[in-house]
Amino acid sequence: MELPERLLKVVRQFGRLPGVGEKTALRQSLIMTKWNKEDLVSFAEAIKGLAELNHCVKCGMFCDDRLCKICMDYNRNHAKTICVVESVTDYLAIERSGNFKGKFHILFGVLNPLMGIGPDELKLDYLISRIKDEEVEEIILAVNPSVEGDATCAYIKQMLPETIRVDRIGFGIPMGGSLEYVDSLTITKALENRRHL
Amino acid sequence: MELPERLLKVVRQFGRLPGVGEKTALRQSLIMTKWNKEDLVSFAEAIKGLAELNHCVKCGMFCDDRLCKICMDYNRNHAKTICVVESVTDYLAIERSGNFKGKFHILFGVLNPLMGIGPDELKLDYLISRIKDEEVEEIILAVNPSVEGDATCAYIKQMLPETIRVDRIGFGIPMGGSLEYVDSLTITKALENRRHL
Repeated sequence: MELPERLLKVVRQFGRLPGVGEKTALRQSLIMTKWNKEDLVSFAEAIKGLAELNHCVKCGMFCDDRLCKICMDYNRNHAKTICVVESVTDYLAIERSGNFKGKFHILFGVLNPLMGIGPDELKLDYLISRIKDEEVEEIILAVNPSVEGDATCAYIKQMLPETIRVDRIGFGIPMGGSLEYVDSLTITKALENRRHL
Repeated sequence: MELPERLLKVVRQFGRLPGVGEKTALRQSLIMTKWNKEDLVSFAEAIKGLAELNHCVKCGMFCDDRLCKICMDYNRNHAKTICVVESVTDYLAIERSGNFKGKFHILFGVLNPLMGIGPDELKLDYLISRIKDEEVEEIILAVNPSVEGDATCAYIKQMLPETIRVDRIGFGIPMGGSLEYVDSLTITKALENRRHL
């Protein structure tokens, strides 16, 4: 294209983001050519700041310092329930639902021997020692349904002492969903997970 | 939200871009947390580089140095036709069509007395002197149809010596368009702009 290198560099960088095609990248870059220098510098500095993002030493969530906001919150870090999730996005999804008042633990993946991801990579030892140290009584495994997810849940359950209650989140028809449009696997799961009224 | 400030800064910056809502901004920021430091730094540097983007001293297009690629191209900068456009995006649209082999001139706006944009703001004097210096014989006004655009075209036409041919791009039914779905104003314009076969 007939664009200068300085502009093309930005277009290329935006194009690396998910959901940003060539056209969007160009539109966004052109809008930014109208920004003043201070705004460009603060955008650039914000991006560089991501490299300094820390992980909470307890739960693994992103944080500015040593501990994340939830692990610093007295009411929550004394809860006896830990919700185990695969990723930061899953953590945020549960937190947004607003009905979980315990603490979290992020695995950053699921067991996947073919990809070389074993218990050591997920630091499951640390999860077990954390459960002991913090006198946790209940674990909610909010791991997504998949072969690897199921195996991870089974592995964690078997590692834990029997005194600890281990639940997995419920699977079935989503709220507002209709049996007519839900896939057979979900219906099978929903039938399995039926509850006595 | 329960996000750390370093991450929120990036989310906020992405949210300032057109077409990027809160969800997209968060998704893009989270993806970037997985980038390594070098990639983050090169994104940041590319953005800072926008502040150093120059305008071509001849046509006003963005460029790395003094002149843009078209004004440096011997075949094109010796053309006797200048296409006058409002903005960089309009310039790119015409260039992408691939059928214009002359040079460009970007006005960076249209006359708009209410917004304080007069002939001086658009540097129309410079356009006139450029036309003289470069011995231009033909001007194509590729200015969008609007009250201000029409006034700008009339003003430029009246400023130029009569020896120079001044055309405005054609308005009418777009290619692939259907009379059934085109607005009345466009149809009126298309009837006015009918051509004898």
